[in-house]
Amino acid sequence: MPTAENFRLEETPIPEPGDGEALVRTLWLSVDPYMRWAIRGDRTNVGEVVTAEVVGEVAATRSPAVAVGQIVVGRIGWQAYGAIAADQLRVIDPTIAPIQTGVGILGMPGLTAYFGLLEVGRPRPGETVLVSGAAGAVGSAVGQIAAIKGCRAVGIAGTEAKCHHLTQDLGFDAAINYRADDLSTALKRACPDGVDVYFDNVGGRILDMVLQHLRMYARVVLCGFISQYNLEEPEVVPRHSVPLALACARMEGFFANDYFDRQDPALRELAGWIDAGRLKYREDIVEGLENAPAAFLGLFTGANVGKALVKVAEPTVAAS
Amino acid sequence: MPTAENFRLEETPIPEPGDGEALVRTLWLSVDPYMRWAIRGDRTNVGEVVTAEVVGEVAATRSPAVAVGQIVVGRIGWQAYGAIAADQLRVIDPTIAPIQTGVGILGMPGLTAYFGLLEVGRPRPGETVLVSGAAGAVGSAVGQIAAIKGCRAVGIAGTEAKCHHLTQDLGFDAAINYRADDLSTALKRACPDGVDVYFDNVGGRILDMVLQHLRMYARVVLCGFISQYNLEEPEVVPRHSVPLALACARMEGFFANDYFDRQDPALRELAGWIDAGRLKYREDIVEGLENAPAAFLGLFTGANVGKALVKVAEPTVAAS
Repeated sequence: MPTAENFRLEETPIPEPGDGEALVRTLWLSVDPYMRWAIRGDRTNVGEVVTAEVVGEVAATRSPAVAVGQIVVGRIGWQAYGAIAADQLRVIDPTIAPIQTGVGILGMPGLTAYFGLLEVGRPRPGETVLVSGAAGAVGSAVGQIAAIKGCRAVGIAGTEAKCHHLTQDLGFDAAINYRADDLSTALKRACPDGVDVYFDNVGGRILDMVLQHLRMYARVVLCGFISQYNLEEPEVVPRHSVPLALACARMEGFFANDYFDRQDPALRELAGWIDAGRLKYREDIVEGLENAPAAFLGLFTGANVGKALVKVAEPTVAAS
Repeated sequence: MPTAENFRLEETPIPEPGDGEALVRTLWLSVDPYMRWAIRGDRTNVGEVVTAEVVGEVAATRSPAVAVGQIVVGRIGWQAYGAIAADQLRVIDPTIAPIQTGVGILGMPGLTAYFGLLEVGRPRPGETVLVSGAAGAVGSAVGQIAAIKGCRAVGIAGTEAKCHHLTQDLGFDAAINYRADDLSTALKRACPDGVDVYFDNVGGRILDMVLQHLRMYARVVLCGFISQYNLEEPEVVPRHSVPLALACARMEGFFANDYFDRQDPALRELAGWIDAGRLKYREDIVEGLENAPAAFLGLFTGANVGKALVKVAEPTVAAS
């Protein structure tokens, strides 16, 4: 488990954009569980900038692809300013929704929920869709999209407050507090016919147990395994293959990026659901670049609800 | 592990077919690994007939669906005669291939290989298809169909003789003797780019290891888990979900029966490949109903190569 001591804030000159690059001034940092994997010792060197998507403003550009003042999403990392190839930036329209949704419900987490559920999970109306990490940025979208598609949406979260949020605010049909409830009993009660689609954001013992409650021809979408990121040695459990074989079920990993050539219609559909009040999102905002480590570490203690964000700066011209 | 003492031969009167039924005289018994699962204590009562498909001859009928003398495949179990609903019988044409192929390459095992590989594994030309239990009835067909489809076919078996049979007789590109070779080293050598499709007939530690050698977007077809059928308690291993997630891979169970509404074109294609000399099969024949337990138990000791059959009787009129 990383601690605040693993992070250091450094001051360096603002970079000059090279040919084809833009200089982006960071407004919002995205904080996501997958980053724990990305900063493992074998993937990141000490002293490197922590990888992350940001929402920022184009401060200077040497590319015709973006203009100064545009709001963009790009992989700048935990920096106040970053120079990046302009064709790696996605310009967002600040009139559609608050700009920070560009790294939330109208960005990678929303698209992960959308494609993971619809393309990998392939739920049919009337089926039971179960999601873990259900109060998080991805999980809360998964359950609501499942409900929009006519499914029974059941969420797993770690506090009573989160469970209440799922059923009262987000329209989940049922919620399970994995810390308070006996998971097997709770699954039987919340999913009496078994689980048709399980969208797994956590891995670990919740996944092991859900595999005992699969309905025939179930689909298990492997999105994340936050419970395992900080383990030195893998845990050992009965083989996942056996319940899958017995239920004729499918378990599948996916990278949301593989679907991003189809992101525009997906983002339009997500924005339409937000407009119609059918898809809600909550934000968990920390202020100041220096507080990014705390926001990140909070993901692993179950502290946050909704999309974790760090607000770094205001746009030069406030978005409508 | 069951023993010969778990089986008893009984003499009972030959049954009379009821309305809509046919009386089938058993010619060949099929012996298949899945039967171990079917005769578990919680699924079969002591004293019941062991479930099995047979190739038989219609000896009497009270249904227009079949005629006396026709060769049929049906689930009669380990009996010399059985009465069964005629619409549960599949009439086979004895001029296409030896009639016992009706429970082999042109029956359930062949269709399991065909649909499991092509519909669940979905190999593309040039991909590496790995199959365990590769010298068995299903596995040997999987590897050959993979080769027909332009894939690199690699088999895992438990003796040098079987491995030799795979590469010399059946056209596999490589074979691994899991008893003699270090499995990880052998997988690296036989599948240098990783495994695109793994057709798993055995489960257990071979499956665990293959999951460490998946290529991105690999597919794991869960067909059987012979290594696990006789365990009282499940073994514990690192979670299968982790390598699947990291490789964006898919692991999926299936029942061949679910595809049997499309069995006729599949059987025609299989028969065409046999005719063309592109799909070979070997039979492991034991004579006499009383020897069925020995043939069955041999499946679990790695003794047999190819389709395990018990020859029970000759047809009244010899097939051409």
